[in-house]
Parts: sequence; C-alpha cells; structure tokens
Amino acid sequence: MGGPDLSARTAEKLTAVADRMKSALGDKAVRFGDEVSDDYYADESLHAAKVSPGLLVIPTSTAQVADIVRIAAETRTPVTARGAGTGLSGACIPDAEGVLVSFEAMNSILEVDERSHAAVVQPGVTLAELDVAAAAAGLVFPVHPGTDSASLGGNLSTNAGGMAAVRYGVTRHHVLGAEAVLGTGEVVRSGGRFVKVSSGYDLTQLLVGSEGTLALITEATLKLHPRLTATTTLLAAFESVDDVTAVIPELISTGVEPTTCEYIDRGTMKGLRAQNDLTLAIPAEVEAKTGAYLVVVLEGRIQSRVDEDAELVAELLANAGAFDVYGLLSGQGAELLAARENAFWLVKAAGADDLIDLVVPRQAIPEYIRRTAEIGRAHGTRVFGCGHAGDGNIHFSIYQSDEEIRSATIKEIFAMGLSLGGAISGEHGIGRAKKSYFQALEDPAKLALQRRIKAAFDPAGILNPGCIFDP
Amino acid sequence: MGGPDLSARTAEKLTAVADRMKSALGDKAVRFGDEVSDDYYADESLHAAKVSPGLLVIPTSTAQVADIVRIAAETRTPVTARGAGTGLSGACIPDAEGVLVSFEAMNSILEVDERSHAAVVQPGVTLAELDVAAAAAGLVFPVHPGTDSASLGGNLSTNAGGMAAVRYGVTRHHVLGAEAVLGTGEVVRSGGRFVKVSSGYDLTQLLVGSEGTLALITEATLKLHPRLTATTTLLAAFESVDDVTAVIPELISTGVEPTTCEYIDRGTMKGLRAQNDLTLAIPAEVEAKTGAYLVVVLEGRIQSRVDEDAELVAELLANAGAFDVYGLLSGQGAELLAARENAFWLVKAAGADDLIDLVVPRQAIPEYIRRTAEIGRAHGTRVFGCGHAGDGNIHFSIYQSDEEIRSATIKEIFAMGLSLGGAISGEHGIGRAKKSYFQALEDPAKLALQRRIKAAFDPAGILNPGCIFDP
Repeated sequence: MGGPDLSARTAEKLTAVADRMKSALGDKAVRFGDEVSDDYYADESLHAAKVSPGLLVIPTSTAQVADIVRIAAETRTPVTARGAGTGLSGACIPDAEGVLVSFEAMNSILEVDERSHAAVVQPGVTLAELDVAAAAAGLVFPVHPGTDSASLGGNLSTNAGGMAAVRYGVTRHHVLGAEAVLGTGEVVRSGGRFVKVSSGYDLTQLLVGSEGTLALITEATLKLHPRLTATTTLLAAFESVDDVTAVIPELISTGVEPTTCEYIDRGTMKGLRAQNDLTLAIPAEVEAKTGAYLVVVLEGRIQSRVDEDAELVAELLANAGAFDVYGLLSGQGAELLAARENAFWLVKAAGADDLIDLVVPRQAIPEYIRRTAEIGRAHGTRVFGCGHAGDGNIHFSIYQSDEEIRSATIKEIFAMGLSLGGAISGEHGIGRAKKSYFQALEDPAKLALQRRIKAAFDPAGILNPGCIFDP
Repeated sequence: MGGPDLSARTAEKLTAVADRMKSALGDKAVRFGDEVSDDYYADESLHAAKVSPGLLVIPTSTAQVADIVRIAAETRTPVTARGAGTGLSGACIPDAEGVLVSFEAMNSILEVDERSHAAVVQPGVTLAELDVAAAAAGLVFPVHPGTDSASLGGNLSTNAGGMAAVRYGVTRHHVLGAEAVLGTGEVVRSGGRFVKVSSGYDLTQLLVGSEGTLALITEATLKLHPRLTATTTLLAAFESVDDVTAVIPELISTGVEPTTCEYIDRGTMKGLRAQNDLTLAIPAEVEAKTGAYLVVVLEGRIQSRVDEDAELVAELLANAGAFDVYGLLSGQGAELLAARENAFWLVKAAGADDLIDLVVPRQAIPEYIRRTAEIGRAHGTRVFGCGHAGDGNIHFSIYQSDEEIRSATIKEIFAMGLSLGGAISGEHGIGRAKKSYFQALEDPAKLALQRRIKAAFDPAGILNPGCIFDP
C-alpha cells in the first residue's frame, strides 16, 4: 500500500486508517496502491514531483468528509483536498503517507436561487457546469481562470482570478458563504445569501485562498450576476508594453468598466497565432512594428451602448499611441480570448521551466515588466510575459533549465515585485511550488501569525501540511 | 485616576501604565480622570452604559500605537480603539481599567493614487474628508453608512455597509490592504493596491469587521471607483411591504444595477416628512393608501442612459403594482436620501429602546418582515422598519421599555432571522450591544474557533475584551 518507499510501520498505520475509513464510508470510497490512477499524483504546476497518495478517499457527503477528517486527526494522518487538479501551485499534491480526498463525487449544484441571485454548490462542481446552470437562469458566475474544467472547490482554495477580474474582482468577491470541515472534524457554516454581514469574524473570506490548509470546503454559496449578452472585443497594437500599460488607468478612469484588459507581448502573440490558427487580420506592416497588444472586452445589456463605449475606448487607445485598433468580429474575439486563456498550454509545450504570476499595483506594471526583463537578462534566463494588465497580475514564463540559476532569478524577481508593493501570487497561490520563496521573503511576524491561525483551525496540523509553509 | 470606583491597586497599576505611556509618547498624548471628556465614554448605541476609560491615549503614528500595545500587553491592560464614536454596537466603549486609544490625531489622507485607483488613509480620516479628496481626482469611495462623520478606522472595524451596498458591496469589498498592530505589539502589513492576490491567508479581510478585537488598524488602502455624475432617483408607492420586496429580485435581474434600493414603511415615511420638511409632492389620496415606499437611485456616466434605465425601472415598478412612480428632482432625491440616512436620529428622538439590523437572503425579506411584526405583537412590543431592501439588511427600531420583554422579543426575532438563513447584524456589528444574543445563538464550534483566532492575534487577550464575545 502506498508504494514501495513506505516503511512497514507507515504501511501498517495506513492499513489501519484505511480500515477505519472503509467502515465509515464503505469499501468503494477508499482506494490505495495500484487502484489509484496517476492522474491523482499531481496538478498542472510545471515542475511538481508526482506523489502517490497513501490513500485516496472519495466522499459523497459532508458527513463523510467529517468522518475522514476525524479519523485523520485521531491518527495524525495528513489530509489533502483535491478538486479537478487544474491548479498551478502544487496545492493538491498528496502526501505519500496521507489521505487524498477527491471531491469528484460531491459535484451537485444544490440550487440556483434566481431571487437572491446566488448558487449553492458542492466543491466538485466545475465552472463549466455552473455556467450552464447559471445561464439557464439568465445569470453568470463571472470568474474565468484559465480553464473552465476547474472545480469550484479548487477555485475557492486558490482564490482563482482570471481575465474578468478588472470588472468583477476575483473568486473571493463572489463567495457569500461556505460550509467546511475544520481540522477537528467539526462542521461549520459561515456567511449566507447576502453581501452584507457584520456578525463576528469573516470565516468565509479566511477560507478562500487558504489552499486546503485550514478546512475542507464542502459547500459554497456563490454570488451570481445578471448575464450580459451585448459584447465587443477590441484589439490594439502598440509599439511597446509600456504604451499598453500606461493607457490602462486612463481607460479605467472613463468609468466604462471593461470586463477584460489583457496585454499580450509580441512573442506570446506569435505563439498564440502559430498554435491556434487565429483568423485575425492584422496587416503585416503593423505586425512588424508591434511590440505588444492590448485586448479590451466590453460587455453590457444593450449592444448600442457597448458599441458607443467601444468607440470611446478605440479613440482613447488611438490617442495613446496605438498603431491601429481593430474591432473584432465576435467569433474572432472568442478565438483570441480562448487562445489567451490557453496560453498556459503554449508555455508548457514550449518547454517553460516555471511560471510566475506576481501581482503589482497597476501603476507599477511598466517598471515591473522592465525590471523583470533586466533580471532575466542578467541571469541568462529567458522570460516571456502576458497578463491581466487591468489588475496588475502579470504572468511570466521562465526558461532556464539550471535549477539554481532559475531559483535565483525567480527570487530576485519576487523580491523586486514585493519592493514595488506587489505580492508573490495574484491568482495561482503559493501551494508547494512557491513556498520556499514565500517563506524566505514574507515578514516573519506575518508568517508566525499565519501559523497560529492555522493552528486555530487545525490543531493537529493534519490539513495539507507542507502547503503555503512548512509544517 | 479612572474615577472613584477603581480599587487602589488598579489605580496604582494605571498610574504605572500611564507613566510608561507618557515616557513613550510624551505627556500630552496621555489623559486621565477629569481630563477625559465624556464624549469618549460611549458611542451612539441606544442603551450602552457610559464608561470612563482608565486612560485616554492619543497616538500620532503607527510606532506610537505599537508602543501602546506593547506596554498594554506587558501589563495585561485592556486596549480599546476609538474612531469617531458613531458606531451602533458599543464596540468602542472603553474599559474602566483599560486604555482607550483615540485615532483622532492619525487623520491624514496619505495618498490618492489616481493611476491605481486607490487611497491610502490613516484610521482617523472621516468619510467626508475622503470624499472631498477622492472627488478632486474624479473618484469615489462608494460606502455610505448613515453618517459621513464616521472614521475609516471605525468603518473597517464594523465592516460598515449603507445604502449603496446593492451595487458596490460593503466596506470589506473596498479594503485592499491594511497596516495593523497585533496584540503582541508587532506591526504587520497585508494586501496592497490590487484586487487580486493569493499569497497566504487574507489577513486584511479578517481584520475588517473584527471590531478592534484582533489588531489596531493604523493604515488602510482603499479601492476607489470612477465617480459617476449622472443620476436619477425614483420613488414608488406600494400598498404593502410585500409588494416592495417582491419586486427587488426582478429589478436586479434587469442588469440595471441600481445604486440604492431602500424601502421605507408608512410610519417611517411619516416621521421622515415630519422631521425633515421634505418637498416631495405625493398626492394625499396616494399617501392614504400607501403601506410602503421604495426609493431607487440609478447612477451612470451618461444622463441619457440613466434616464432610459429609469423609464425601464418605472415601468417595471408600475407593472409590479406601484400606485405611482415619481421621478424626483435631484434636490428632492438628495433630501429624501439624507432624511433616510438620518432615520437613526428620528428613531432615537422617538425614544426607541433598541435598534436591530439583521440581514436575511433577499428572497426571505417578506417573510422576515411579516414574522418580525408578529413577534412584536405577541410581546406587546412596537417595531418599525425601514432598510436596505436591495441587500436584505432591514433595520427595526424596538419600542419596549421593559428590559426583559425587550430582550425576549429581540432574541426571538434574531432566532427567526437565523432560521431564514440570516445573520444577527448586517452592518452595525455585534460589539457589546448584541453580544449576549450572538453568544446564545451562534454555533458553539464557531464561537470556539473565533476565540482561537483571537488568541492567534492577541495571545494576552488585551484587545477590546468583552467585545463580540466575553473574555
């Protein structure tokens, strides 16, 4: 059980834990050894070591999750939660001597409440599934990270962001309430179907982004918005990234509320076009002199207003130095955004060695991008960027096979971003992948405080140990 | 020192603490006994016992706040933070043997960042002051609780709400970062000028709404929005409160995004008009049959769009049974909203014995209001309501001089509201005023968890002890 590396004693302990879990949940809910497909060994983070979990357990109810955690707490067995496994920080990589809890069978949309504009979901529901249900009620859950096969449980755990954050905010801004199992096995509920509450500490917001280290989320109440159907996508070609990022504050200040403001650098656009066969018709002479593109998506209730706003935005972009601004046909816009959402796969296929997603204040983006390029050059490391220009969350892919040089490059970029008022991750999370940097660069008093908070939720230290910080 | 009720031993201890604080902050920053005006004894909660603080200390910097807390932690002296004292939950009522920290001298707007759309403020800045500074940059901090003399520090501590929450959310949705002094005296900074972050636990969101029990907030980074100047206010007269609340979900579903949806019952409107000399011209025959009013404020960039939206809304309200829908002149709208914001003073002048502000899911509002009236009648207690129909936060004033009957009435209303999926306070907070109900009705596992979280921030238990829950 659990692979050949486990000591006889650990294997014996795991067998005992497995037996208790089987008694509580039934034989079929518990798997180990060869019964566990290697799909469960990792997430999508670029250089995560794959780990075979000691046990895989697949609960079907909150009560079963509570049973799992209670048994784990009594036996001091690590517990790692897993959604769809699309994370980029290694937060759901299991412990070889622990229990991996997959939420694949807790995947029901319990309610779409059209009057309170809320959805109640189990953690295994995917964004795609919620979108279908919300659309049927004329509503939308407006968080669009890179993949709609992500689970809501995973989204909550990493506080997923995505391309619509400039208008709608990120996952946390749409989580109204949660049910969760603490490290003690206790089940608590927080929040509810309202945006406004001041009744004790906001446990919901603390759980969001905690990467499975504080509690296992077993249900979430999400805020839905009226679904806007009128849309226009603009693509503007600029000489440089600086030109792109300089125009963003002005664009936001108009009050037009773009849904998306993505910057795509020259190299990334080339890759996207090569991989995706986009039907964009950018004249060759414009393409030749373009250093960076800006994609702006506008949405609204009424197409004529969106078109009018698009004219205003196009004029503003032209005045800010765009060579040209293209109003994309709806098919073209969708193609380009889908390609941009899938840029991760491009980066992976291109053999990137790591991926970072610092967030910095919007006004600091130009300096951040410039200094990142400088740090890359100084270390002989190639870095390519694209990202969410509207919210300061820029993604860089790092090409450097020497691990030591790569780590030194990344650490320097992180330290520089922090000095600009930024944070290590805008949306991917710390997980296991960025833990060493987080621990090295974060204020020790804050790290100690976070450890004490973890102990308040998880006194036995069994929930995702080794994620965010060392146990 | 500290009044005649203190034992000699306590007075001696306070003298020693005062001496240490004077050494650290200077003599002028520390006051006691008769030097402390009774303005510092309470907030605006209706039946709070006034308490003279052991010491009043007025810091001018974060370093001084850290000194205060460090000395307090070493001497196990309670510390209560005070902003403008406009709270309604008794959260800033001092401890007779403790230190009251008034943030009146930390009242600078450190920056209005027009490019990142953020403001950095000290806790003593008032909403009115921030509004002037934001307006100069074409921006707005869109949180409007009952009074603009409230301080930002107080706003953060109670997670203040107000009339614009249906569109903009509440205080927490506009707090991007904070600097705070933990109960250990350590200074930590969290968040930054960005909406998107996933780098460890969200300490900012945990501090918001914690009513001074976890840390003393010494600086806040706030999200600003483009200031919308086009506006229209509609007033609709309905037969009953049920008619008003039934139309809200439909109104939200249009996607029109009203800034404000207030319901005002017949009795409250009568009081507002009597007290405020409003120039509303509602025909007597309409007024006679009206049971409840709905005020809808629409805002936007472009007046013609706002007017067009107002027509849509007016039609929707008429179809939903409104006797009539009045488009108010801008002066009239401002008058009515100002009167509504000041309803608290009306309630106070009318001799209300308590004020409650449960929040319930939007769809549960009709049942909540109906059952509140029933509970009032059963106890011989008069209850009058008005409130934020758009977000489920309904305020009731309670007229019952018998304390025992009043408490029983309120407890029954709270329990009923919780059974509908609500929470005890939408925006006023638990403080000291609602603590007994909170402790009696909250899940014991959640209460215990919150105590553990408090201990993580404040191991010595010195920060606002007796607020939210008993020490």
